[in-house]
Amino acid sequence: MTTAEADQEVTAAFLVIGDEILSGRTKDKNIGFLADYLTTIGIDLREVRIVPDVTEKIVDAVNELRAGYTYVFTSGGIGPTHDDITADSIAAAFGVPIDVDPRAKAILEAHYPPGQLTPARLRMARIPEGADLIDNPVSKAPGFRIENVHVMAGVPSIMQAMVDAIAPTLKTGRKMLSRYVDADVPESRLADQVGEIQTRFPETLIGSYPRTNDGRFTTQIVIRSRDEDTLEEATAAVREAVAGALA
Amino acid sequence: MTTAEADQEVTAAFLVIGDEILSGRTKDKNIGFLADYLTTIGIDLREVRIVPDVTEKIVDAVNELRAGYTYVFTSGGIGPTHDDITADSIAAAFGVPIDVDPRAKAILEAHYPPGQLTPARLRMARIPEGADLIDNPVSKAPGFRIENVHVMAGVPSIMQAMVDAIAPTLKTGRKMLSRYVDADVPESRLADQVGEIQTRFPETLIGSYPRTNDGRFTTQIVIRSRDEDTLEEATAAVREAVAGALA
Repeated sequence: MTTAEADQEVTAAFLVIGDEILSGRTKDKNIGFLADYLTTIGIDLREVRIVPDVTEKIVDAVNELRAGYTYVFTSGGIGPTHDDITADSIAAAFGVPIDVDPRAKAILEAHYPPGQLTPARLRMARIPEGADLIDNPVSKAPGFRIENVHVMAGVPSIMQAMVDAIAPTLKTGRKMLSRYVDADVPESRLADQVGEIQTRFPETLIGSYPRTNDGRFTTQIVIRSRDEDTLEEATAAVREAVAGALA
Repeated sequence: MTTAEADQEVTAAFLVIGDEILSGRTKDKNIGFLADYLTTIGIDLREVRIVPDVTEKIVDAVNELRAGYTYVFTSGGIGPTHDDITADSIAAAFGVPIDVDPRAKAILEAHYPPGQLTPARLRMARIPEGADLIDNPVSKAPGFRIENVHVMAGVPSIMQAMVDAIAPTLKTGRKMLSRYVDADVPESRLADQVGEIQTRFPETLIGSYPRTNDGRFTTQIVIRSRDEDTLEEATAAVREAVAGALA
């Protein structure tokens, strides 16, 4: 890989925080959303982790991920209740103090009727020192960004609005383009040819995915590349291999 | 926690392997399934990771997770194609050789018509030395277990059948019981009281989850404990707090 190509790669990890996902009680809807979103804007999602509401687990994961990727996104644990420990955990991960942030407090004061900004609600204004706020158009309590880590809500509608809010601030890479070829044969029938095409086009990423259609196994071959010409050439080779397998 | 209680804890991590999940092209359906399944049989799912089809990433994740939890489950990457590198990566993680396994080969030979067990298909019989096979009633190519790591297919119907196959072999803990209380107020209205109840019942896990109902924010409080009496007491306290907030 040349330096110019390396410069175009912007990578990300997503950290989902919450006991309720691990117990199965809540089914995550944010991973698929963020995966699609980042792919569309040219950021490569390279890793996802789901951890419980346990400070040490959050701290360790954040520190490992922020060292390894351009960006880290987190969801969950920034509400007003005792189990919302994400903000404090992020402060601990960065080794910075955390307290009620005047900007966040002003947002909540403007939102709640006089006298309704209870101590519990004020917890949502706790922001690590040095962080920027992330706008929450849905329910006001903000997320925040500290260095390369973006801390967002777990409720999908709020999380999605926050992603929209931060997207313009993100560095994006040359977009990964993709094509797919469906084949009405099991993937083992194509495996040798597709493996050979992958070897022939090392700068593409070729995936072979089994599907079921009406009880039969079929295949979808996905070809990905940042270069359009390479993508078209490799896709043509896959189409030819599929035609051969069907013949 | 007493030793007797610690003995009852059986923990697990789930490693999802596949570029297609991280690109958003395929939406994972296995995490929610396994979370529910493990909770039901009394195993605590404590962490989930999604990694790409990259040997080093798989090896590092497997080695970190198998040292930290009673069980590791993986899904994805055990098919016949060039991007199916899970079995080889697991062998590398354990530092054991891998080759075509006579038991797995026999299963595939019985399944495919004579002459149809191509080199690509035979890849699916590559099993790390010392592993036990996991039965695949759907499409025959087996998964495998090596020490505390269970390696399964990514296709949900196959993955689910494999989980059913291994469930009777798993050590399970004392089941985590749960109750929930719905409250028609935003969670910030209940935060102080619920936090106090969590402090009063340290052996329970109390979660507070914001919901939206017809545009309004409501709350579901989830109380979890391995002890039924404690669970009922804590739940009663939450019900009382909710009644107070509604009054």
